[in-house]
Amino acid sequence: MALIGLKATAFAAAAQLLGVAGAVLVLVWCIYFMGGLAWEASNKSLIFNIHPVLMLIGLIIIGGEAIITYKTLPLNKETKKVIHMVLHAIALILGIIGISAAFKYHNESSIDNFYSLHSWLGIGVIILYAIQWIYGFIIFFYPGGSGTLRRDSLPWHVLFGLFVYLLAVGNALLGFLEKLTFLENSGLAKYSSEAFLVNFTAVVTVLFGTFVIFTVLSQPVVEDDHSYSPI
Amino acid sequence: MALIGLKATAFAAAAQLLGVAGAVLVLVWCIYFMGGLAWEASNKSLIFNIHPVLMLIGLIIIGGEAIITYKTLPLNKETKKVIHMVLHAIALILGIIGISAAFKYHNESSIDNFYSLHSWLGIGVIILYAIQWIYGFIIFFYPGGSGTLRRDSLPWHVLFGLFVYLLAVGNALLGFLEKLTFLENSGLAKYSSEAFLVNFTAVVTVLFGTFVIFTVLSQPVVEDDHSYSPI
Repeated sequence: MALIGLKATAFAAAAQLLGVAGAVLVLVWCIYFMGGLAWEASNKSLIFNIHPVLMLIGLIIIGGEAIITYKTLPLNKETKKVIHMVLHAIALILGIIGISAAFKYHNESSIDNFYSLHSWLGIGVIILYAIQWIYGFIIFFYPGGSGTLRRDSLPWHVLFGLFVYLLAVGNALLGFLEKLTFLENSGLAKYSSEAFLVNFTAVVTVLFGTFVIFTVLSQPVVEDDHSYSPI
Repeated sequence: MALIGLKATAFAAAAQLLGVAGAVLVLVWCIYFMGGLAWEASNKSLIFNIHPVLMLIGLIIIGGEAIITYKTLPLNKETKKVIHMVLHAIALILGIIGISAAFKYHNESSIDNFYSLHSWLGIGVIILYAIQWIYGFIIFFYPGGSGTLRRDSLPWHVLFGLFVYLLAVGNALLGFLEKLTFLENSGLAKYSSEAFLVNFTAVVTVLFGTFVIFTVLSQPVVEDDHSYSPI
């Protein structure tokens, strides 16, 4: 059963459109407005710019796609599980690289680490995300737990996964607000195109996360009688 | 049924402790560190200080208490409904006064309005919260919808309510981060007691919101056979 009686189709379609919009917006911001992306550069801002791009496109958007696979793909359960696992691995790896970019920028620019709420929650999110992935891999993929353990674990896997994902979306908002506040303190006009762009990207991120959750709470697009759905 | 098979008791107890901790922390911050609260003052910061106190204690903590009444109170359904409704009314009114304090501070200090993500989402949250309250009042209290309408509305009332509440908790985090960033830009040390206090208050707020949601998803502390539980 699912909390929402409706099919996930419309929610998932909205999530796809918002995901594409969010990816385009963060690229426009980081490349057009903030000058581009680079891992090595004398202009250290270009190293920072990798951070929002990878966190949004990786952890949030690809992570969100991973979450909704079970409700959207017309495939058998084993195939969906592999896609779910691989997409989450990609999301996690891009997230770790994205966080490394933020540290590299801080260190090369002599900016303090770990003083902000965004960094505190961010480290929490990435650790919980990794624990969740490893637990899922061991119990549901290889070597795999007993039938009872899988069945008992699944609702908690879903619940904990949604909790970590919501925390990731919330922390993305903190990141957008923090960076924009720094830019405004350095002279960016508060009602400039760039400021609106960043806030709109954040709003698109909230809506994307909302539709991911709504998709999870809805009925699968194609019914799969062989899969056990915990919610 | 409920998503979580456990009784709500432990989750609700944790929420109560975190709620008290959050209320104490925000009062210590706004009164001890930031100089106190005032609606009229030449030191305009004292007007601002009303904002975090009323938003956290009102909208988030009392709002959270309102949400969990159905799972925690050993009372009949009609009594719980009135408590739920009255607590949400108090939360909403304190939220509106809290937002007014932020505007009053901005206006008397010549600070721009509505340029930040926190203000954008905040206005969205308070409007949605008010719509949700009015809809709940009309359908579930007075004059009351038909039995079918109530039953069909209830899962959406719960889902929409949790969505608005999560958005409120997320926006509280944005508020803590935004204010602390302003203070740090004005000279507050990044690793000072006050900075840690604000970040800890934000972490307590996240945990409070989490345990409120977990309480809602769990079994009632005392079973009430006459009430219909949508999740």
